[in-house]
Amino acid sequence: MKTRLILPFFAACAALAQPPQEVKRIDEPFKVGIAGYTFHKFKLPETLAMMKRTDVHYLCIKDFHLPFKSTDEEIAAFKKTCADSGVTGYALGPIYSTTREEIDRDFAFAKRVGVNLIVGVPVTVDANKKRHPSPELLKYVGTKVKETDIRYAVHNHGPDGIPYATADENMGYIKDLDSRIGLCLDIGHNARANEDPFEALEKYKDRVYDIHWKNITEFSKKGHGIEVSRGKLDYAQFVKTLRKINYTGVCSLEYEKDMDDPLPGIAESVGYFRGVMDTLR
Amino acid sequence: MKTRLILPFFAACAALAQPPQEVKRIDEPFKVGIAGYTFHKFKLPETLAMMKRTDVHYLCIKDFHLPFKSTDEEIAAFKKTCADSGVTGYALGPIYSTTREEIDRDFAFAKRVGVNLIVGVPVTVDANKKRHPSPELLKYVGTKVKETDIRYAVHNHGPDGIPYATADENMGYIKDLDSRIGLCLDIGHNARANEDPFEALEKYKDRVYDIHWKNITEFSKKGHGIEVSRGKLDYAQFVKTLRKINYTGVCSLEYEKDMDDPLPGIAESVGYFRGVMDTLR
Repeated sequence: MKTRLILPFFAACAALAQPPQEVKRIDEPFKVGIAGYTFHKFKLPETLAMMKRTDVHYLCIKDFHLPFKSTDEEIAAFKKTCADSGVTGYALGPIYSTTREEIDRDFAFAKRVGVNLIVGVPVTVDANKKRHPSPELLKYVGTKVKETDIRYAVHNHGPDGIPYATADENMGYIKDLDSRIGLCLDIGHNARANEDPFEALEKYKDRVYDIHWKNITEFSKKGHGIEVSRGKLDYAQFVKTLRKINYTGVCSLEYEKDMDDPLPGIAESVGYFRGVMDTLR
Repeated sequence: MKTRLILPFFAACAALAQPPQEVKRIDEPFKVGIAGYTFHKFKLPETLAMMKRTDVHYLCIKDFHLPFKSTDEEIAAFKKTCADSGVTGYALGPIYSTTREEIDRDFAFAKRVGVNLIVGVPVTVDANKKRHPSPELLKYVGTKVKETDIRYAVHNHGPDGIPYATADENMGYIKDLDSRIGLCLDIGHNARANEDPFEALEKYKDRVYDIHWKNITEFSKKGHGIEVSRGKLDYAQFVKTLRKINYTGVCSLEYEKDMDDPLPGIAESVGYFRGVMDTLR
């Protein structure tokens, strides 16, 4: 019996082990959020449960979770439900708007919801129902941002024929408009259009008001969404750029794979992003 | 109408965007796996579905998924089911063994399953049913590794009063035994015992045959399991050490939170680990 008591004691004496070192986490300038579209097959309670589970606290609100026709009471109830899960709805969108009246609606709704950012896609629709970028509507957005001081971020959608393909194209439309009109940089769609999203982020740093992060299988139109840990974009470059430009907005995951059951992919992606952040220091 | 057609063209010309740069992934010396205990509330098919979902291909087999009494046909069926999900069972354990007969059973079973590694905890049980480390049984394990050439990794369990607390303690028992007896380093339990797991990994690099990775809320007995992205261990230090010592074994996640519904936490943890790997280069 004696050896059993003595050996652990000796082993412990011989140990001289150092205590572990605690990981040092950087207080990032930006926040981590999720783009509402990720949850387009889920109602708000399920959405919030998935956000809670993955410890994400900022939501870009889509109309299927909070319709334009919501009453002030319904808006208050929505915000309370979010707050109860520790979630803040920080922006609306992306919203596709085709007329001045719809732009008016968007800004009026943002004001009622109490957010100071709209992610938008102002388009005209031709006789064949094809949508086109609308510099005219963007000019009108300029009058609205002056009137309301609510910012407006134009979302880029890559090479799919949906209007506003790249950050470069979008800056072409907005560069001479009120600076409160900026970009929602969708880094997956940038890359699918063969535009380096992180170069664009740095180049247009003063006009990037929202970011959709994701990863893709290839840098072409054929590229599709995948768990962020498994795609081709270089997230170390992403986080370095976010810090370099001191981006203070929200980076919202838009996860577009397994949309019937997105939680594991969201979790893997959020974990990956945090792993990159914790390692760059 | 003209502006609509001309503007995108001009914007595109003005672009001069660089193409995105593809992330460079390092071909790690080690493999990523999962410790079967993570799934102790799940049958094999559910276990394999979760592994497939998180793209993990190595399983440390627990007896609740493959009982000792399995026939050769049952073992073959188990292995085929695993293979159909792209999973290899690479080791058995942890197995608690209290007699020479049980050690014989463990090695005979490993041989039948076709694995060359047992994660084990050889103990004696006193009159009060308290378990103690058993240097005598470890000596017997030494004769078995010589006889079978199957390696045996002693699992450390930290400050909970379960035998074999730390790597230092365990090396005290095994250092003079056959070198095919080594350690299964449980980095969470090391840290809960205030032993730096990565220092231990480097110090005992020639005797570490398996690793359980996880993260914990604090470096003390009170510390409990948490998503790897949210705990205190420094995973950059972990990955650096794995590469430095050229660890060629499996690193198996042992996830012990939300054990009724572990998939999101497993996914977040696996994503985090991959984020750290991709960032260190």
